[in-house]
This record gives sequence, structure tokens and C-alpha cells, in this order.
Amino acid sequence: MPLFLNNDEVDQLITMKDTMEALEILYRELGAGAAVTAPRSDVHSPTAAAQNAEGPMAHYLKSMSGASPHFETAALRFSSDIVAWRHTGGGMRREKLPMLPGERWMGIILLFSSANGELLAIMNDGVLQRFRVGGANGVSTKYLARQDAENVGLIGSGWQAGTQVMAVCEARKIKKIKVFSPTKANRERFANETSAQVAVEIIPVDSYEAAVKDVDIVISSTNARKPFLGKWALSEGVHISAMQRDEFDDEALNACSPLIVHSHATENNVTSSALAHFEQDGFKLRDHPTARGIDWQSLPTLPDLLSGRVAGRENDQQITGFVNNIGMGAQFAAVGKKVYDAAKATGAGHEVPSEWFTQDVHP
Amino acid sequence: MPLFLNNDEVDQLITMKDTMEALEILYRELGAGAAVTAPRSDVHSPTAAAQNAEGPMAHYLKSMSGASPHFETAALRFSSDIVAWRHTGGGMRREKLPMLPGERWMGIILLFSSANGELLAIMNDGVLQRFRVGGANGVSTKYLARQDAENVGLIGSGWQAGTQVMAVCEARKIKKIKVFSPTKANRERFANETSAQVAVEIIPVDSYEAAVKDVDIVISSTNARKPFLGKWALSEGVHISAMQRDEFDDEALNACSPLIVHSHATENNVTSSALAHFEQDGFKLRDHPTARGIDWQSLPTLPDLLSGRVAGRENDQQITGFVNNIGMGAQFAAVGKKVYDAAKATGAGHEVPSEWFTQDVHP
Repeated sequence: MPLFLNNDEVDQLITMKDTMEALEILYRELGAGAAVTAPRSDVHSPTAAAQNAEGPMAHYLKSMSGASPHFETAALRFSSDIVAWRHTGGGMRREKLPMLPGERWMGIILLFSSANGELLAIMNDGVLQRFRVGGANGVSTKYLARQDAENVGLIGSGWQAGTQVMAVCEARKIKKIKVFSPTKANRERFANETSAQVAVEIIPVDSYEAAVKDVDIVISSTNARKPFLGKWALSEGVHISAMQRDEFDDEALNACSPLIVHSHATENNVTSSALAHFEQDGFKLRDHPTARGIDWQSLPTLPDLLSGRVAGRENDQQITGFVNNIGMGAQFAAVGKKVYDAAKATGAGHEVPSEWFTQDVHP
Repeated sequence: MPLFLNNDEVDQLITMKDTMEALEILYRELGAGAAVTAPRSDVHSPTAAAQNAEGPMAHYLKSMSGASPHFETAALRFSSDIVAWRHTGGGMRREKLPMLPGERWMGIILLFSSANGELLAIMNDGVLQRFRVGGANGVSTKYLARQDAENVGLIGSGWQAGTQVMAVCEARKIKKIKVFSPTKANRERFANETSAQVAVEIIPVDSYEAAVKDVDIVISSTNARKPFLGKWALSEGVHISAMQRDEFDDEALNACSPLIVHSHATENNVTSSALAHFEQDGFKLRDHPTARGIDWQSLPTLPDLLSGRVAGRENDQQITGFVNNIGMGAQFAAVGKKVYDAAKATGAGHEVPSEWFTQDVHP
């Protein structure tokens, strides 16, 4: 019978160690062509939701899938959201609104056995999503940062920054982390809370410059849509670990050798033409990245790095870089299996009637 | 709270009239660019299932999605199957094996509200799948067959042939249907059972030729992988309605004016290279159609026809044709809403805890 696991349960079961172990295996399998990951499907359509005076709104159904032969699993992750675009200081910003009863969102991972096809688990995706993002950056750091790296500069203090800290502490013996984000209260709260979790000193600092000064690893964990970290943020031998594409500028990224991206998978984006007139306003309905001088498709991927097709760090002077440019459905097949196994071992979650998901007719 | 509907419940709630009404609206919306449908994602990976002596086996995770603004819904349909390829008289044939406990398959439709994003229903997909296939052919017949069409020749007597009969009877006032399939017992049983359902005379006949002689509409409903119906099967003024691509040969299809396909949507097919050696044996892991002299992408679609971009039948002499070449996720958004509304009106199905599918963290 399928197991249902909510976010609180996933949070009790998941560890960054397991996440990074699972992702390492997956990236090797992807590098060898054994594991598979399909492009994401994004379906945007007009919504009858209360309209937003500041910009367009749409219903957004997202899905992605993939499979890991090692873990004998496949996964389908989906979310159904009302999204709104609002003007902010930095241009239009897309927001997922909590429109469901109780101000909730919907995001689900379905984990299947590839041995017999059965649905193993239904999980809320929020916590696992956070771990697989941090975990991908953590694996890159394990393979690219200097072996003696111990000081980290972190830009950003949001929910995702927490798993970025867990991941860097898993990848290296970190002694000190400096954190900067524009709101003082946020960075101070983050430093307090996260320091206790990882048992590493985390110091809030007053500027971007202070955060990146004299560190071995720079982590960016923001939702910026315009690059704001330049070559000034880099020093000899540093590893930069970006959570998304538009944090470090072209010059900074071009200074990295190697510069590794997460994946070349793209998205299949279909949008009702009823929404097309909004595209005139200088932004896209999907948060398309700003035009960049970087040819992302030409860059090696994390699976290329882990399977040895490209060399990693070769000396302590070079600057290395990783950009977590796009997620993969297959991450949920690998990390999801770790969470499922932990749930079975501890009796967590509760079972869902399997007849709901199966049928006696050949579809 | 989401409603769960199994196949028996869907079968009680669904009608061919509702199905064709919903699809007509959807095709107009698609023709106008208001509705959207995303390419199907097919993920194939090696399976640890008991191996098949006759050929390869794989785990196959399929998903497709789409949205209909008219119905204020979006849908995600997925299935998780163990597939095996076996030698048959006509070459390799792909089969979905009932590997789940109780010899069952898994196929699910998730129906979402595009007004607030909530999950409205979880449905087994077998019955609805059958109706949406027949319904697409039925809509084509409504728009392309002669107004006075009353005699039908049907090739095939499987499960899908039943909804093809319902659909043609919904599209025109049909008086007589002749059915041929190679096994006598099958066509006789089909004629008996289906005749009672649609209150139209259905006569089993002994050959392809007898089935298509002196009829106004020829329907093919088979899983052939090599075309077997030629120009000899066509007569002046006939409409041909093919359930899939490889039933009528190139010459027969080229005799049609217009020749309409269902959709230009393609699939995103990702296959583990661990399965690649099987591709040497002269077949593809996906049931790729045989090479054809038809440029499917250049042909008008059913949405093109219903939105008036291409002309339909202009006289009683011309031969018209429709090929249901590939399905669309958006069909489940439209027809699924009809089933959901019928369930709400009658109190059918049972509710699933909505907290299983929602979360209080922003994913």
C-alpha cells in the first residue's frame, strides 16, 4: 500500500547526508546514461481567481519525472499553483499564492517502484525540494572546493539558505560562515537558528563585500532575477556555489574553471494565448532568466563531472564554479527512495488504500 | 476535498454525449489558442521484474498534462507500467503487464481547478481514456461524414471498438454496422453485446472486404503496427475514421480530402541507455510507428477543423479522413470535468483528505 508522508514527517526522516549520497549515485548514473530525467512540463492557463491589480495571474500546473535504476524507482513531481506577477523594486516578480483552503500550496512527489510499477509513496514536496536543491550544491562543493576549505560566505538568509548551510557542512569541515542579506533582522535570526542546527559559528555581516572577504567558498541563495555578484566577489582558490542562474554575472562565471551546471534539461512551456498580451510588458509569464552572455548548453553538467568526463579542481589557486541552473525529476526518484526507506524502517507515515491507484482494466 | 472515482464509478457517470460535447469545446479552445496541452513525457528505465525470455522489459512512467479555460480545469494523467516486448506474427508487440498485486495496472487522472489550484478529483483512467479516444473520432465524424451517413463498417472488436460505436452513433443516425475482426467468436460476442448497448443492428461479417462494402463510414479500431487497409477499402463519399496511425496505408490516406489528424503534440521520450542494446533488434522501445510517406506535422488538426481554419466536407462525393494519431492531456481536463460534475450532482465517489495533497510551506 502506498505510504503518505507529509512535510513534517519528511523533515524527521531526511538528512543532508542521505540526500547527497543519493544525488552522487544519481549523477553518476545520469553520466553513464543509466538514469533518465524528462524535461519539465509547464502548463499556464487563465484563472478565475480574484484578479490582481498589479499584474497578470495564471493557473500553473508543473510536472517533472525521472527514474534511477540504482534505487529501482521512478518519480513524478507535480504542483498546482495560482501565480501572480507583481512589480517590485527589481522589476516584475512572480509569486505563488497560497490560494488553497487554509492558505496552503499544493506540491506532491509520487514515488514508484520500477521493479513492479507500484506506487510506493505520496509525499508533500516542500521539504524534499529544499534538500535536493541544497544537496546538488553540496555535491558540487564536495567535488570542486579546496580540500582545506573552512570559511564560507553566504548571500541570502531565506528558507533555502538553511539547506545550503547543511550541505556545505556535509561537504567540508567548515569552521565559520559569514551571512549577509539586506534585512538585518533576517540575517541575525538565520545566523542564530542555523548555527545551532549545524554546530558551526555563523556570523551576520553588514555587506556583500564583508560576506565574501577571505572565504574559501561563496554560496548564493537568493531569488534574484538580475546578477548582482561580480568578479569583485571572487578571490584566489575560491569555489562559488550558486543556487540559480542569475546571481553571479557573466564575468564572474567566466572566471571559473571549470564552470559546471546542474543539467541541460529544458522545460516544455505551454501558455494559453489568452495570457499572451501580458508578455508585452517586458517580462515573460515564466520567470525566464535575463539574457546572459553564457552559453549554458555548452557547459559541462554535474553528471559530466561525477562521471569523470570533465576534470574538477587541479590546484589550490584556480576558481571553480557551480550553477544549480535547473532541477531534474530524477532527483526525486533518488532522494525520495532514501526518505521512503527511512519511513519504512521507522514506521512513519500512514498507508493509503492501494485500490485507489490501481485498476483491473488495461488502460 | 478531492473526490476519488474508480473506473466503475466513472463508467456510471460518463456518457459519449458529454464526452463529445466537452471535446468539441476543447478543440475550439485549442484552435483559438485558449486551451493548452503539453507534450507527453515517457520515461523508460531498466526493471528488476522477472525477466521475459522473449524480449526486453522496462519500467515505463508516462505523464501528460493540459488545461481548458472553459472548464476552469487542468489535468495531469500518469501511468506506471511494466512493459514487455514479445514476438508475434506481425513482428514485435509491446504489452503492458498487470504486475501490481491482484494483477492490476496503474493509471490515474488528477483533475485540478484552475480557479484556485485545488485538486478536484483523482480518477482511474481506464474508462475515461476509452471514452476520450472514441469521442475524438466521434467529433471528427460529426464534422466530416456525409449528413445522411447511416451504414458503418468497423474493423476491430476490442475494448476500444465499443466506444467507437457509441461515438459514431452519437455523430450520425446510424442504422447498421458491420464488424470484422480475425477471430469469429470475438466479433460475434462484440456484435451481440454492443448492439444491445446502442440499439443499432450490428452484423459480424467474414472479411475486411465485406465490412467496408457499401458503407458511409469506415472505422478502424485495432493495434496494428503495419497498415493493412488500402484504397480498396474506400468508396465514393466515404469518411474514414482511424483510431491510430498505422491502419490505413499511405495511398488510402492520400485519397482523403481533407485528411485531419488529432494533434501535432509529440512525446518527450527518455530511455535509459541500459536498454539501448534492445533497440538493435529492429524495433524501438517505444512503439514507434513504421516509417510512412505521410508528413503528419503538415496535416491540419481537429482544432484547426473546428475553429474553421480548414474546410471540412464540401460535397457528397469526396472522401474524408481522420487519424487519431496521438492523444492530448487537455482531453482529461475537459472530459474529466464533465465526469466530476456528474459525480458531484449524484454524490458518487468518496472524499480523500485534502491535507494529504496540500502543504503550509511555499515549495
